[in-house]
Amino acid sequence: MSERSERVLDLAECFARIEQLWSPKIIAQVGDVQVKLARVRGTFDWHAHAHEDELFLVHSGRLRLEFRDGEVWLEAGQAYRVPAGVEHRPVAPDEVQLVLIEPAGTRNTGDRETDRTVEAEWI
Amino acid sequence: MSERSERVLDLAECFARIEQLWSPKIIAQVGDVQVKLARVRGTFDWHAHAHEDELFLVHSGRLRLEFRDGEVWLEAGQAYRVPAGVEHRPVAPDEVQLVLIEPAGTRNTGDRETDRTVEAEWI
Repeated sequence: MSERSERVLDLAECFARIEQLWSPKIIAQVGDVQVKLARVRGTFDWHAHAHEDELFLVHSGRLRLEFRDGEVWLEAGQAYRVPAGVEHRPVAPDEVQLVLIEPAGTRNTGDRETDRTVEAEWI
Repeated sequence: MSERSERVLDLAECFARIEQLWSPKIIAQVGDVQVKLARVRGTFDWHAHAHEDELFLVHSGRLRLEFRDGEVWLEAGQAYRVPAGVEHRPVAPDEVQLVLIEPAGTRNTGDRETDRTVEAEWI
C-alpha cells in the first residue's frame, strides 16, 4: 500500500473503531474546521455552542434534532446546520453514525459541562 | 412543513439540482469553511490551491485523485484531504457525486484559470 492510499479515510472503518457513544473523533482538519465522526444512541444533553456553528450529516440511521421551538428528523444523506447559540438536543432512538463539521475546539456538550463532556481526539 | 424542516439539506436532492459538471455548489458554511457538492465525470485540470486544504468525500461513484507522484482511488464513503499547495487532478471514469469541504473562496481550478474555472454559488 502506498503512503497516499494509507491516508484514505474510510468512514465505515473509522466508525467501526469508535467504541464510546457520544464521543466525536476527529478524522480531518480543513482551515479552522474539523470533520468528526460520532456513534450516538439515546438522548443527549441539551446544549448550545456560543460561538460555533455545527453541521450534522447523518451517515447511517435516523437522528432527531430537538430545539426549544421544534425538531427535525435527519435520515442518512441528510444534513442540518445548527447555528451558534441555538440550544439543541440530538436524540437517536436507534444507533446513528454521524459526521460533524464544526470549528476545531468545539466541545460535544457546548457551554455545558456534563458527565458526557469529552475533548475530541483524533482517530 | 415547518421552517426548520425546510432547512434540512438532502444531499441526493441537491445533487439532482446540479446541472453543470465540475461546478461545485455551496450547501453550507461553518466557520471559514464551506461544504460544497459537485457532479463530476471525465478528467479535470491539474491544479493546486496555494493556501487551502481540500477534503474530498465521495458520495457515490469512484474517483481517482492523481498527484505528480502517485494516485489514490476513492469509493463511496471514503475521503481524502489534499493539503494546500499539492498539485492534483481528479478523474472520474463514470459520474461521481462529490462532497467538498474547503475554505470559503476556494476556486475549483485553484491557482489556474481554465475554461472550467467557476466561482462557486449557493444551491
